[in-house]
Amino acid sequence: MFQDFKLVDDRPVAIQVKEYVKRLIIKGALQAEQKLPSTREMSSLLRVSRNTVITAYEGLEDDGYTYAIPGKGSFVAAMTKEHERADSLDTVQIDWKERMNEYALLAEELDLMKKGIRAKKGTISFTSIAPDEQLFDLGDVKRAFLDRMAIEGQVLLNYGYAKGYKPLMDYLMHYMENKGVDLSGKDMLVTSGFTEGFDIVLAALRPSTRRGTAICENPTHPTAINNLKLQGFEITGIPMESDGISIDHLEKVLQKQTNGFDLAYLTPSYHNPTGIVMSPAKRSAVMRLMMRYQIPVIEDGFNEELRYSGAHVAPLIATAGHGNGVIYIGSFSKVLFPGLRVGWVLGDRTLIDALESIKRARNIHTSTVDQSILYQYLLNGKFDKYVKKVRAEYKRKYELTKACCDKHLPWAQLSGDGGLHVFLTFPKSIDTRQLLEGCSKQGVIFTPGDRFFIREGEGTNTLRLGFSRVTDENIERGIQIIGRQASHLLSVSKNT
Amino acid sequence: MFQDFKLVDDRPVAIQVKEYVKRLIIKGALQAEQKLPSTREMSSLLRVSRNTVITAYEGLEDDGYTYAIPGKGSFVAAMTKEHERADSLDTVQIDWKERMNEYALLAEELDLMKKGIRAKKGTISFTSIAPDEQLFDLGDVKRAFLDRMAIEGQVLLNYGYAKGYKPLMDYLMHYMENKGVDLSGKDMLVTSGFTEGFDIVLAALRPSTRRGTAICENPTHPTAINNLKLQGFEITGIPMESDGISIDHLEKVLQKQTNGFDLAYLTPSYHNPTGIVMSPAKRSAVMRLMMRYQIPVIEDGFNEELRYSGAHVAPLIATAGHGNGVIYIGSFSKVLFPGLRVGWVLGDRTLIDALESIKRARNIHTSTVDQSILYQYLLNGKFDKYVKKVRAEYKRKYELTKACCDKHLPWAQLSGDGGLHVFLTFPKSIDTRQLLEGCSKQGVIFTPGDRFFIREGEGTNTLRLGFSRVTDENIERGIQIIGRQASHLLSVSKNT
Repeated sequence: MFQDFKLVDDRPVAIQVKEYVKRLIIKGALQAEQKLPSTREMSSLLRVSRNTVITAYEGLEDDGYTYAIPGKGSFVAAMTKEHERADSLDTVQIDWKERMNEYALLAEELDLMKKGIRAKKGTISFTSIAPDEQLFDLGDVKRAFLDRMAIEGQVLLNYGYAKGYKPLMDYLMHYMENKGVDLSGKDMLVTSGFTEGFDIVLAALRPSTRRGTAICENPTHPTAINNLKLQGFEITGIPMESDGISIDHLEKVLQKQTNGFDLAYLTPSYHNPTGIVMSPAKRSAVMRLMMRYQIPVIEDGFNEELRYSGAHVAPLIATAGHGNGVIYIGSFSKVLFPGLRVGWVLGDRTLIDALESIKRARNIHTSTVDQSILYQYLLNGKFDKYVKKVRAEYKRKYELTKACCDKHLPWAQLSGDGGLHVFLTFPKSIDTRQLLEGCSKQGVIFTPGDRFFIREGEGTNTLRLGFSRVTDENIERGIQIIGRQASHLLSVSKNT
Repeated sequence: MFQDFKLVDDRPVAIQVKEYVKRLIIKGALQAEQKLPSTREMSSLLRVSRNTVITAYEGLEDDGYTYAIPGKGSFVAAMTKEHERADSLDTVQIDWKERMNEYALLAEELDLMKKGIRAKKGTISFTSIAPDEQLFDLGDVKRAFLDRMAIEGQVLLNYGYAKGYKPLMDYLMHYMENKGVDLSGKDMLVTSGFTEGFDIVLAALRPSTRRGTAICENPTHPTAINNLKLQGFEITGIPMESDGISIDHLEKVLQKQTNGFDLAYLTPSYHNPTGIVMSPAKRSAVMRLMMRYQIPVIEDGFNEELRYSGAHVAPLIATAGHGNGVIYIGSFSKVLFPGLRVGWVLGDRTLIDALESIKRARNIHTSTVDQSILYQYLLNGKFDKYVKKVRAEYKRKYELTKACCDKHLPWAQLSGDGGLHVFLTFPKSIDTRQLLEGCSKQGVIFTPGDRFFIREGEGTNTLRLGFSRVTDENIERGIQIIGRQASHLLSVSKNT
C-alpha cells in the first residue's frame, strides 16, 4: 500500500496527503479500527516531511475519518457500511426523461448553445458578439477589487440584499437619471445580467391561467424569443424598418387584437441582430401607441453604451416621463465584462417590490463581489476610459467589416450602425444555412439569421456577422470566403 | 449658472465635471446649440484645472451630448424633445398589482425578509445563521483572486459556460467522490448558491398539468417550504426524531398515498432548524423506502462541512451507490462566504443536461469571478485551514449557548449537535411569538419556530437561536432575558 501516491505541483502537500489517505479509507483499502502508519513511517513511505504528515493526520481527525489514541497512534474511524447498502440500492434507476415537465424539455429543445457548430481550431468564427477580452483592463479590475475589499471586505463576503448592493444601486439610479429618466415612483432590482432580469419580469407578468401575448421586433434577440416561449407567450413580430420598428404595422396589429397584449419587448438602440438605432421621433410614436393601448414595455438597454457616434438618444423609459409603463433592463455585459454577471431592472416601485421577492426566492441575491467590483470600477472612473478605448477599436473593426462586405458581398444589404456585429440580408434565393454549410467546410462560420425571427421559414436569407473577436486579417479573409461561396450559390440558382 | 458644482472626494474630478454638465444638458439648463464656456472659463468657474475640463469636454463629445466646432468651441447637441413628449405620456399609469400573476403575488406574500422584526441598534439578535464575518480570512481571499487573475484574468471576465467553471467542477466532483459518491452516470451543474439549485430542480420536476406532491422533514428550511409552495407543490411533513426523520411515519405516509410523490426534500446533516444529524442506519432505511416507492430525493448538503465532532457520515447520494435517485445540492455558503454565490447540483446526467438548459435560459451562468475565487481558495488549501479555525470557534460558542440554555431555560428541550444554531422546544403553553414580543421590548430577538413547520399552528412553542454572530457576553445576557420572560409567561399560564 501507499505505492500509488503521486504529488501534483499546485496544491499544498499536506492537503494532498490527507486527501490520499481519505480516499483509501472511503474505498475500504484502509478498514475501520485499522492503525495508520506512524507519522515517521508515513513520512518515509510517501517521501514527504514528517510535519506534513502530522498536519495531514490532524486534518483527517478533524474531519472524523480517524481518531487518535494518545501514545498509540491514529486509527481509522467506523463509517457507514458501504457494501451492505450498495447491494440493495444499486440497481434502482429513475427514468428522468419521464419525470421532467414540459418546461424542462422545452428548455433543452430551445437551447441553441447545444446545437451550434463547434468551431474547430483555426476556424474563423463570426458567431460571437462577446467583447474582445484582449481589450480588458485587468489592472483596473484588480485595483477595483482590492480597493473595495480594503474598504469593506468582510461585509462583501457575507450575505447581501436581494435588491442589490446599495452603493451600486445608487450609482446606477444616478446613471439612469443622467439618461433623462424621471426616477419618481421608480425603483431598481439588481440581477445576474440582462437575461435574469428578463426572465424574472416574464415570470411575474405571464398570465396564470392562459397563454400570454407579447409583441416584439422581428427579427429580435433569440434569448428573448426563447424565454418568451418558455414562459408560454405567443409572440407577434413587427417588421423592422431602417429607423426601427414599423409604426404602421404596429398600429394595425394593436387595432386588430381586441384583447390587447400582455407586454411588448423592444430594443431601441443597437437592436440585435439588425444593429438599428430607433429614431427619437419613432421612440415617441411607439410610446404613444403603447400607452394608448396600455401595453407594458420591456426595454432592452443592450449595448446602448457602445454607440460610436451620433447624438445622445433618450431611452424609452425617459421618453415615458412620469409614466410607469416601461420596465428598463440594463447591463454592462457586452460593453464591460460578461464574466461579472450584473444587470439591473428599473421600473415602477410596486412591480420592483414583487420582483425583489421573486429574486430572493430564486437565488437570494446577485454576487456581492461582482457588484462591488463593478461599482468600484465605475467609481474609479475606469468605465469612461475603457469605453473610449473600445469604442475606437470596435468602430475601426466595424468600418473594416463594412468595407469588406461592400467589396465581397455586393448583393447583400447591410444593416447595423455600430455595436459588435452587422446583419446581412441576401437575395431571397440564398439560404444562409446552406451558405454556412459551404463556408464551414472552408473554415468560416457565422450565425444564420433565421433564429432571430419569430416564425420558422423567415429570414432564411439573412445572417449575423459578429466581428468583435475576429482579427483584421481574418475579417478580410472570412468575408472573402463567404463572398465566393455566396457567389457560387447565386450562379447555381440562376442556372436552375 | 455653474454655481452649484460641488466636488466629492472619491471620484476622478474630470468625471464629476462631465456628469455635472451632462445633468445641466438633460435638465434643459443648457439648451441645444448653446455654446459651452471655453475650457479656460469653465476651469475658473468650477475651480478645477483646465486639463480636467478638457478631459470632461472630450467625454461629453464622445457620449454625444456635445459637438465641437474647431476654432469655435463646444456646443450642446440636439436631443429628443423632452417637453413635447412629456405632456402626452406623463399621465399614463399602469396598475401593476393587477398585471402581476399569482406567482408574483405569492412570492411577495411568502417573502419572510419583508416581515421580520428589524433589529434596532444595540439589539441582541439571534435571528441570523450567517457566518461570523470577523472570522473571514480576507488576505487568503484576495490572494486567491489575484492568483487566478494572473493565470487567466481575461478568460474569467468574458462569458463562461452554463454548466460551470471547469476547474471548479473538476474539483467539486473529486470532493464529492471523497464523500463516497459513485460518480458514474452523474454530472454537475454549478448554480448561484443552494437556493438557485433547488429552484431550478423544482422548475424541472414540477408537474405541468396538476399540483405537485412533495415530502419533507417537519420542521424544515423555510426557503424550501416557500419555494415548494411557489412552484405549486403540496407538502407532506414527516415528524423528526432525535436521530432524524421518523421512519415509521414515513412508511405509513408512503403506503397511504396511492399516486406516489413527485419528490422528497431532505437535509440529513445539521438539519435546519433542529440541528439533528441523521444516523447512518436511518440513512439506509430512508433510501430503501424512497427507492422502493421510486421517489426522487433532493438532498440538501447544508452545513455538512461544519461538523464539530463525530465520525464521517456518508451523504444520501453516497448511500444510493450506483442508483440515480438522489439529487445532491451543495454549497459552501454557510461555511465559507455567502457573498460568493456558488452552489452545485450533482445528479443523474440526463437530468443535469436539462437543468443546464434551464440555467442558461435563466441567467446564462454563475459569476465566473465568484467560481474562480472559490476554486483558487480551495486549491491553495485555505479551506481546510479556515474550517479548522471556524469549527473550533463555533463549537466553543455552541457549548456556551447550550450551557446558558441549560441554566436559564431548564424547561426547554434543546436540539442541535453543531452548526450555527440550536432549536428549542418549550412546554405547549408557551407561544414563542408572544415570547418574542416580550423579549424584543427588552432588546432581544430570535426566530419563532412556527415558520419552519409545514402547517399553520404547528411549532408555536419552538424557536431557533442562531449564535454565530452574537458575542459571548450577549449570548449569556440574551438567553437570560429570554429565560426570565419565558418564566414569566409560564407563571401567568399556570395562574389562569
